[in-house]
Amino acid sequence: MITVNDVAKLVSGKVLGDGKTPVKGIAPSALAEEGDITFAMSEADLKQAGKSRASCVLTNAEVTDYPKTVLRVEDMKLAMTVLYNAMLEMRPPAKGVVHPTAVIAENASLGKNVSVGPNAVIGEGAQISDNTAISANCVVGKGVKVGQNVCLYPNVTIYDHVIIGDRVTIHSGTVIGADGFGYIPKDGKVYKVPQMGTVVIEDNVEIGANTCIDRGTFKNTVIGKEVKIDNLVQIAHNVEVQNNVFIAGLTGIAGSATIGENTMIGGNVGIADHVIVGKNVKIGAKTGVHGHVRDNEVIFGYPYREAGDAKKLYGLLSLLIKHASKFRKLLRDHPD
Amino acid sequence: MITVNDVAKLVSGKVLGDGKTPVKGIAPSALAEEGDITFAMSEADLKQAGKSRASCVLTNAEVTDYPKTVLRVEDMKLAMTVLYNAMLEMRPPAKGVVHPTAVIAENASLGKNVSVGPNAVIGEGAQISDNTAISANCVVGKGVKVGQNVCLYPNVTIYDHVIIGDRVTIHSGTVIGADGFGYIPKDGKVYKVPQMGTVVIEDNVEIGANTCIDRGTFKNTVIGKEVKIDNLVQIAHNVEVQNNVFIAGLTGIAGSATIGENTMIGGNVGIADHVIVGKNVKIGAKTGVHGHVRDNEVIFGYPYREAGDAKKLYGLLSLLIKHASKFRKLLRDHPD
Amino acid sequence: MITVNDVAKLVSGKVLGDGKTPVKGIAPSALAEEGDITFAMSEADLKQAGKSRASCVLTNAEVTDYPKTVLRVEDMKLAMTVLYNAMLEMRPPAKGVVHPTAVIAENASLGKNVSVGPNAVIGEGAQISDNTAISANCVVGKGVKVGQNVCLYPNVTIYDHVIIGDRVTIHSGTVIGADGFGYIPKDGKVYKVPQMGTVVIEDNVEIGANTCIDRGTFKNTVIGKEVKIDNLVQIAHNVEVQNNVFIAGLTGIAGSATIGENTMIGGNVGIADHVIVGKNVKIGAKTGVHGHVRDNEVIFGYPYREAGDAKKLYGLLSLLIKHASKFRKLLRDHPD
Repeated sequence: MITVNDVAKLVSGKVLGDGKTPVKGIAPSALAEEGDITFAMSEADLKQAGKSRASCVLTNAEVTDYPKTVLRVEDMKLAMTVLYNAMLEMRPPAKGVVHPTAVIAENASLGKNVSVGPNAVIGEGAQISDNTAISANCVVGKGVKVGQNVCLYPNVTIYDHVIIGDRVTIHSGTVIGADGFGYIPKDGKVYKVPQMGTVVIEDNVEIGANTCIDRGTFKNTVIGKEVKIDNLVQIAHNVEVQNNVFIAGLTGIAGSATIGENTMIGGNVGIADHVIVGKNVKIGAKTGVHGHVRDNEVIFGYPYREAGDAKKLYGLLSLLIKHASKFRKLLRDHPD
Repeated sequence: MITVNDVAKLVSGKVLGDGKTPVKGIAPSALAEEGDITFAMSEADLKQAGKSRASCVLTNAEVTDYPKTVLRVEDMKLAMTVLYNAMLEMRPPAKGVVHPTAVIAENASLGKNVSVGPNAVIGEGAQISDNTAISANCVVGKGVKVGQNVCLYPNVTIYDHVIIGDRVTIHSGTVIGADGFGYIPKDGKVYKVPQMGTVVIEDNVEIGANTCIDRGTFKNTVIGKEVKIDNLVQIAHNVEVQNNVFIAGLTGIAGSATIGENTMIGGNVGIADHVIVGKNVKIGAKTGVHGHVRDNEVIFGYPYREAGDAKKLYGLLSLLIKHASKFRKLLRDHPD
Repeated sequence: MITVNDVAKLVSGKVLGDGKTPVKGIAPSALAEEGDITFAMSEADLKQAGKSRASCVLTNAEVTDYPKTVLRVEDMKLAMTVLYNAMLEMRPPAKGVVHPTAVIAENASLGKNVSVGPNAVIGEGAQISDNTAISANCVVGKGVKVGQNVCLYPNVTIYDHVIIGDRVTIHSGTVIGADGFGYIPKDGKVYKVPQMGTVVIEDNVEIGANTCIDRGTFKNTVIGKEVKIDNLVQIAHNVEVQNNVFIAGLTGIAGSATIGENTMIGGNVGIADHVIVGKNVKIGAKTGVHGHVRDNEVIFGYPYREAGDAKKLYGLLSLLIKHASKFRKLLRDHPD
C-alpha cells in the first residue's frame, strides 16, 4: 500500500493535509471511492471533488481550507500520467477469479492468480501465465500461449497457436490469428494459400478494439516489443512490425510488409504488400505507401511523397485552381 | 392493436377489402405471418404476396379481385418507411425475458420488461432501464447506465461506466468505451495517457456494426442526440459529435475533434485530432480533413478543399494529362 | 486415409522412404503430430523437421540419409498449396460435437455431424446443414439457413433470416445482416429506411474477420459464388457482388452498388452508392470510385482514373514540384 506522500515523490507534488493517507487507486470524482486520488482541473472540479468519496485531490490550483488532503503539482496532466502508469504497473489485471461459466479445456494450464470471466472459452493445451485476465466472452484457441499480466478485454478472439508475451493488453472485438487473405486462381480453380504460420506478439504491446492481425502463411506475423496499435487496424499475414512502432486507427498493412523500429503511422494509412518501411519514419494520416521508404523519412499523400514535396504540391495545386483560366489559355496558346 | 384502417390514415392510403383487419407487424412476403402487412412492388410480388400468410398487402399497383386486403398508396417507399418507423416506435425491443444463462451481477438493476439474451454478461452496479434488450453474448461493464427502449444486438461490448440514453440502437460487434490511443514517449519509457473519462451516448442514437467509440482521457467522449453512425467507424477519445450528425462507414475521427450539429460525413473520411468541424457541413467520401471547417461548408478531397475547387482541380488535372507533352515542353521552353 | 504416395501424385513429387506412410494432416514442424506432413524450406528447417513428430517432410532440397520419409518437389509453395487445399476439401470443419453450454432453440434443426461450440447461440427455426461448425460464442439468429461444410469461427454474428450457402468460411468478429445505414430527414423528424431484406451468401465464399455485410432494404444484399472478402470490409445494403470477386481489407462498398464478375478490389478502396463496376475490373488500393466503371478497366486514384492516366499524372505532378518556381513564373508572366 502506498500513501499520498509516496505519490507526492513520484509526481514532484506538495502535500497539503495528511500525507499518510493510503492510496488505493485513481478515479474521476464521480466514480472515486475511499482510498482513491481524484483530480481537479478547474474551480468547479475542485468543488465536486471536495464532495466526492475520494481521499485525496490532485490539482494545480492554489487551495486553502479544503475538506480533503490535497496534492499540488505544477503540470497536472503530466502528474496524472505518471501516477496512472505507476498504478497500472502496481496492479495486475487479474484478481484470480475463474467464473463458473467459463469453459476451460481440461489440459489447458492457468498460472497463479489468473482470472477468467463469465462464458470465456479456453482451448486445449492453452497456457495462461500468472496474473493474466481473460475477460467475459473471450475465446482463446488451442495451444495458445499467453504471458504474464496480460489483459484481454471482453469478446476478444485468439485463434489456435497464437503466442502472446507479457504485459500485453488487447481490447474488445479484436481478432488475432485469423487466416490471411491469399488465393491463387489456377486452371479455373481458386486455391487458398496455406495459412499455417501463427502470430507472435511480444512484450508490452497494446492493441485497440476491433483490430485484426492475421496469422502468417509459412512463417509468422510478428508484432515487436512496445508496439501500440489503435482500433480497426488491419495487419496482414507475414507482416513484421518492429519494436516501438505506433499505428493509428483504420490503417491497413498488406501482406509481408516490414515496418522498422520507432516508426509512427497515422490514421487510415495503407501500406502495400512486401513494402519495407525503414526506422524512425513518420507517415501522415491517409497516406498510401506503395514503395519502400528509407529510415528517417517523413512522408505524406496518396500516392506518397516526401512531406515537404507533398506540401509544396498542395500549394501549387491551389495556385492552379486560382489561375485556372490562365492555365487553360497557356496550354491552348502554346504550340504543340 | 391497430388496424389496416389506422395504417391507411398514417400513410394516406386507400383500403380495398376489410379495413378492420388487425395489423401486428410488417414483413416481406416470404417471412410474413398472420397479422403482418407485406408489400408488393411488381406483378410478381403481388402474386407471391397473394399466396403469403400476410393479412394485408401494401402496393402502388392497381389491384382488382385480390385474395387479401389491399392498402393502395401513391409513393410505395415513403409509405413503407412511415409504417416501418411507426412500428419501431410502437414495439419495444424487449420482451421481458431474461435467459437463464445470462450472468447478471447481483447488484445490477433491471427495469421493467428488460430482456437479457443467452450468455450476456452484466456487470456490478449496472442499471438497465425499462423495455431495453441486451442480446445474446453482449458484455455490459460495471456501473454502465443504459436508458429505456435501447437495443444492443448480439456481441456488443460496453466498457465500465459508459452512459447510454433512451431509444439507442447498437449493432453487433460494436465496442463502446475502450481506452483511447494515447502515449507519451519520455526518457526512454512510453507512458500511457490516462483514459479515465467515459462515453456518453445521448437519446435516439443508432450505431452500426463493428464500430468503436473510445472513452475520454480526463473528460468524456460525447455522441449527441439523433446521431447516426454506420459500420466500422472509429471515434477517438474526447471527440464531441453534436446532435443530428450522420457518419458513414469506415470513417475515423481522431482525438478531441468536434463535429457540429447536422453535419454529414461520407464514408472513409478522416478527421484529424483537435479539428473543429462546423454545423451543417457536408464532407464527401474519402476526404481528409486536417484543419478547422466553417459552418455550411461543402468539402471534398485529400487534402480537403471546398467542393467546387476540388471539382475544378479534377478537371484541370484531366487537362494536364491530355496535354502532357505540351506541358512538359512549356516547362522546358520557359526561361528560369 | 491417404498415403505419402497419394500426396506425391497430387503434387508431382518424388518419395524417398516409405510411400505407404499414412497422412492425416499438414502442419509446421513445431506443431506437427504423428501422421502429419510438415515442410522444410531451408537447412535449418530440415533439421528441425527431422526432430519433429511429423511422419513425412515435404521439401525442395536434396536430402540423403534422413530420419523420416521425404517428399521432394520442385516448387515448394505450389506443392504446399495444392496439398493444403486437398486437405481442406477432405476434412469437414465439423466434428459433430454439440457443446452442452450451447443454447439452441428447440425448433432449430441441425444436420448430420454439425458442431456447435461452447456458448454459441442458435435462434428459433434456424437450419444448420451437415458437417457445419458453429464455433464458440457465435450467435446465429432466427430463421437463418446455413449450408453444408460451413465454418463460422468464434464470435461471428448472423442476424435473423440470413441465408448462407455451402462451403462458406466466416472469420471471427464478422457481422452478417445488420441494418443498413439509411435515414430520411423529413419534417424535422428522422425516419429510418426499412431494412427488411436479408443477406444471401452463395457457395464457396470466404469472409475475413471483423467484416460487415448489411441486410437489404426491400431486396437482398447478395454475395456471389467464390467471392473472397478480407478483414474489416464494409458492404452496405442492397449491394450485389457477383461471382469470383476479390475484395481486400478496409474497403467499403456503399448502398446498391454492383460489382461485376471476376473484379479485383484492392485494400481501402471506396465505391460510391449505386455505382456499377463492370466485370474483370482491377481497382488499385485506396482508389475512390464515384462513377460507373466499364468491363476490363484498370483504375486507380482518388478520384479514380484509368491506371495509365493516374500514373502519368503522378509523373506530371513530380515535374510540377521540381519546376515549381518556373511554373509560378509562367502563370505570372502569361497575360490574362
